Amino acid sequence: MKREEAIGIVKKYLPEKRLQHTLRVADTAALLADKYFADKEKAVLAAIFHDYCKYRPLEEMKRCIIESDLPKDLLEYHPELWHGPVAAVLIAREHGIQDREIRLAIQYHTTGRAHMSLLEMIVFLADYIEPGRNFPGVEEVRAMAEKDIIQACHQASKNTIQHLMRKGEPIYPDTFYAYNDLTKRLNGGSVFGRK
Amino acid sequence: MKREEAIGIVKKYLPEKRLQHTLRVADTAALLADKYFADKEKAVLAAIFHDYCKYRPLEEMKRCIIESDLPKDLLEYHPELWHGPVAAVLIAREHGIQDREIRLAIQYHTTGRAHMSLLEMIVFLADYIEPGRNFPGVEEVRAMAEKDIIQACHQASKNTIQHLMRKGEPIYPDTFYAYNDLTKRLNGGSVFGRK
Repeated sequence: MKREEAIGIVKKYLPEKRLQHTLRVADTAALLADKYFADKEKAVLAAIFHDYCKYRPLEEMKRCIIESDLPKDLLEYHPELWHGPVAAVLIAREHGIQDREIRLAIQYHTTGRAHMSLLEMIVFLADYIEPGRNFPGVEEVRAMAEKDIIQACHQASKNTIQHLMRKGEPIYPDTFYAYNDLTKRLNGGSVFGRK
Repeated sequence: MKREEAIGIVKKYLPEKRLQHTLRVADTAALLADKYFADKEKAVLAAIFHDYCKYRPLEEMKRCIIESDLPKDLLEYHPELWHGPVAAVLIAREHGIQDREIRLAIQYHTTGRAHMSLLEMIVFLADYIEPGRNFPGVEEVRAMAEKDIIQACHQASKNTIQHLMRKGEPIYPDTFYAYNDLTKRLNGGSVFGRK
């Protein structure tokens, strides 16, 4: 599916502001794909669809989680975490997008997970640093994204955990697993702290 | 086993400074047991033995983890996390202490875990706030311990995660699970942030 066709689909589901965010994520994902030698077409397509289900009714997302093979523990966490996994299911069902890499990048764009692929990291990071984002720490992650995508994703996952802990909210396990895995990758496989 | 007998055993394994820490943890655990209506004798015994294996050779701890039913993923994390689980095995093997509650309180005193019992929380917290401890945030946790043991354990687990993240170290999953579980308990079971 080409960029324009994909945009034509998602624009029916997204308010203007969210569409503009989506286009910025797609542009950022394209830049990151170039920089880190990833498949740009897949990166852009995953980015365009990453928020495809953001405005689905909660009941519909819940049903999708229950009836698909998505992890059921999602239902014990904030509904904000549902739209990524649900989109990974519904883009296949509703638009025939079966590509596993694209679907995983969409599924994990909010939480990250252990052992993220390059494409997953690109969409996770593009969503975090797209030029419209403006929150404490984003500049630091943007600077890291220029040099080391693992370090940038690590910092983003760290910031996310700290943000949720400050708000006194539970943290979805994949978010922790992403932090741990990226920490280990940065430490060169060692688990005993950074060298 | 009585307090004096237990102290007689652990003092053979601990340098003087660690023994003094152990005695302060036991006193703190006794105070917490009184305050929260827990079994004081068990709390004191668990506290006395909590660092029983702190100075065992790494190879001996490793062998114990491999040969017992302790979780093997411990070996992928910092050896500092080994002495609690190993002590839970060796106090049974070497001193016939079979009490499940005591052994779990020793096993999880460093990391915590989801669904901690009152006794587990007491030892976890006593180790964190005993009067010899002096690090940023400990006063806040001490004050919380006077009023709400769940809130105090929650803050301690949060501080530990933040401390490890600042050092760029991986975090053992049970530490995360403790944070998540205590967060949910504080939120009255809701997963959507504190009420």
